[in-house]
Parts: sequence; C-alpha cells; structure tokens
Amino acid sequence: MDNINVIAFDADDTLWVNEPIYRKTEEQCKQILEPYLSPPELSEKLYETEMKNLKLFGYGIKSFTLSLIETAIELSDNQVSAGEIQKIIDLGKEMRQHPVELLPGVEETLRELEDEYKLMVLTKGDLLDQESKIARSGLDPHFDYIEIVSDKSTDTYSRLLSHYSIEPSNFLMVGNSLKSDVLPVCKIGGHAIHIPYHITWDHEEVDPDEAQKDGYHELDDISQLPDFLNRSE
Amino acid sequence: MDNINVIAFDADDTLWVNEPIYRKTEEQCKQILEPYLSPPELSEKLYETEMKNLKLFGYGIKSFTLSLIETAIELSDNQVSAGEIQKIIDLGKEMRQHPVELLPGVEETLRELEDEYKLMVLTKGDLLDQESKIARSGLDPHFDYIEIVSDKSTDTYSRLLSHYSIEPSNFLMVGNSLKSDVLPVCKIGGHAIHIPYHITWDHEEVDPDEAQKDGYHELDDISQLPDFLNRSE
Repeated sequence: MDNINVIAFDADDTLWVNEPIYRKTEEQCKQILEPYLSPPELSEKLYETEMKNLKLFGYGIKSFTLSLIETAIELSDNQVSAGEIQKIIDLGKEMRQHPVELLPGVEETLRELEDEYKLMVLTKGDLLDQESKIARSGLDPHFDYIEIVSDKSTDTYSRLLSHYSIEPSNFLMVGNSLKSDVLPVCKIGGHAIHIPYHITWDHEEVDPDEAQKDGYHELDDISQLPDFLNRSE
Repeated sequence: MDNINVIAFDADDTLWVNEPIYRKTEEQCKQILEPYLSPPELSEKLYETEMKNLKLFGYGIKSFTLSLIETAIELSDNQVSAGEIQKIIDLGKEMRQHPVELLPGVEETLRELEDEYKLMVLTKGDLLDQESKIARSGLDPHFDYIEIVSDKSTDTYSRLLSHYSIEPSNFLMVGNSLKSDVLPVCKIGGHAIHIPYHITWDHEEVDPDEAQKDGYHELDDISQLPDFLNRSE
C-alpha cells in the first residue's frame, strides 16, 4: 500500500450514523401500524418490498418511505388509514432533517490525511439526501472530490477511476460494506479497508466465505487509518 | 460563439419527452380521486405540495409520487383509501418504466456535432431516474460526459466547469428551461441556447422581462443547432 494517492470514503455508517436512523423509523412505523399487524411481520415484509422496489426506486429516504407505505397497505389488508399514511410520510421528512452525527474520530482522521492524500467521498444513494448530509456534516472542506452514485458495482468503480485518471493500484476505498465498498474495489485491482459498523442492512451483508476470497484489510475504527497507512509504507 | 468546445444538453424535454408524462400521470390521478374532489383543485394543490416538498425531496418521480399521495390525503380530507393510494404508487412505478421517446432530430444532431465538440448530458433530477433514461435512450455513446445534479444554479455550473477545467466562454448549454439551462449559464459568462418545449412545468417558468436582461439565443428545434453553430463561427 505504499503507492496510494487517493483515498475514497463511503459516507453512511463510515463517516456518519445512518442505518440506526432507518431502524428507528421502522420502529416508529410499527407503532403507527400496531392495530393492524404484529411487529416482526413488518420488518420481514418491508425488506421484501424494498428489494422488489430497489430496481425502480433505488436507495435513499424517498424509496424507503414509499416501501414503508406499500408494506403498510399490504400488511393491513388495505385497512391502513390516510391519516396513518400521512404519518409515515412525515417520518420520511423527519429522516431527511435528522441531524448528521459524525462517527468518532472521523474529522481528526480526515485532517491527518488531507495533506498527504487526495480525499474523496464516494457514496451511493439519493443525490439530494447525500448532498444535504455532506453539507450539514461540515466535512466538505476536507474532500477534493465528491461522488454520489446510484450503485457501487465494479463498473461504477472502473468508470470513476478512469474519469479521474486514477490507477486502481493508487486507489484505496474505506467503508463499512463488504459488498459495496470492499469486494468490487478488490476485484478491479484497487485497495480496500473494511471498517465494520455495528448494524448492517441485510442487503449489504455478504457471506464471509465469499469475502475471504479477495484480499482486503479490516480496521475496528477509522482513527486507526493513518497509523495503518504509515506502517504499510 | 467561435470558441465553443463543450456543448452540454439538458435532458428532460430537450433530448426526450418528459413533462407530458408527469401531466398524464396527474390526469390518471384525478380519475382515481374523482369521488373526493373536483379536478382543477388537484393541479393547484399538487403544485403547492410539490413546492413545499422540493427542498426535502428534490426533483423526480419518487418526489412527485410522494407529493401526489400527500395531496390526495389532504384534498380528500383523509378519506382516500389505502387501495387508492396504492394505485398512485403504481402510477409512479409506471412512470419509471415509461419508454423514453426521443424528440425529433436529437440523434442526428448529436451525430453531426460529436466529432467537432465534446458533448455532455447535464440534467437535474433523481440519479436513478436519469441514469435509467440515459441508458434506455441509447444516446449514451454520443456523450463524453454525463452529469446528474440536484439543481442547476450558477454555483452548480461554476463547480462543474471548474471540475472539467472548462472556461465559461468555451461552454454552450442547450435546454428548454430559461430558469435552469439559460439564465445561470449566461450569468457566469457561458453561452446558452434556449429551445422552448410546448409544455413547461410552472416551476421552470421565468418572467420574460427578467430573461431579457441576459443575452442568449433561441432556436425552435434542436436540428437547427449545427447550422447555427456553423453560421456563428
């Protein structure tokens, strides 16, 4: 890893808290729908609806809100009321305005790295959600490039690296998702560091056996990154 | 205009049909909601709801669908049924899968220009909607750059031009919206051509007096662009 010159960071659950906000909204939605269903039903059906809608609606809060509404309609057997659906839309609006809570050590780490490396935010999701979170995070000045993509496939990484004329061997991706941040980058010859987060959305889960096939590094905490990079020079 | 080397095209209602699909969906929604309201009410209230939600939800089909649902709930005084709301969500899904209908002359024009100029798609809206339309349009091979942005302000144009190291005087933007495609580009010293489309969303309308203050050109049809550029060399 002595030839890295660009470090890209995933955003949600790498730079700031995200998944817990989705789970909290799911819990609030369960309370609204209490008259119609037993709570575990919702989580299971919601995931099923999200996966069905993913190709059409993509990632992000609006997509999640629409899937919550569809799930409520289906599980309540069309009994959920207009007022209850409005409450679900209001939960979506609250999510969009949720304060951005940086993960520990993020700002210090970026400050330590920004002189030596070009830094990038590379996040998937809804354009407006992510732009708003980047702006509200206050982290913007530490980054040379900001890229919001609809998915993180090997194609996405290849296209981006070529757009910036970055050789894969000079590129390091840091993120909490093996599926989106680590495996596709390793596959195209780039470097990747996995920093697990305590909650992972099912969709981002990967069979550990599959992950073992590719080489990548794992750190417990983003604060360990500068030392790790110094040691591997 | 003899020093243009990059031409950026707006996409919706410049390269392909868009606004009529939104208006058609609005009409279908009026039929669903017929028991609760008189049709003109919906258009007016919908626009009001869209404007209220714009900052949180941005542009695009998911945002439009959520605003349709909220409008239906409000105008029906909470009487709209879960089944009717599901129908509105289904209309949103149909919009996402609507065939991409190129405007006349678009492909031929791009083919005429692509050897002499760098061509860009520069569109605002939902990342996934727009990526999907670009892919399904088949126009992708004609473009050197694709940029999907959440809004088209002078800041957005300045940032993009600087990202690509393009001088404003070398940049031409072509689009149907005075507000988004023409005025902000003129303001930062770039060139712009307005090609009006027969329907414009209220939000993109500009007072003609305001528009007169800036210099730009207007063409009736995208097919006139190559000749116009040759004449102004």
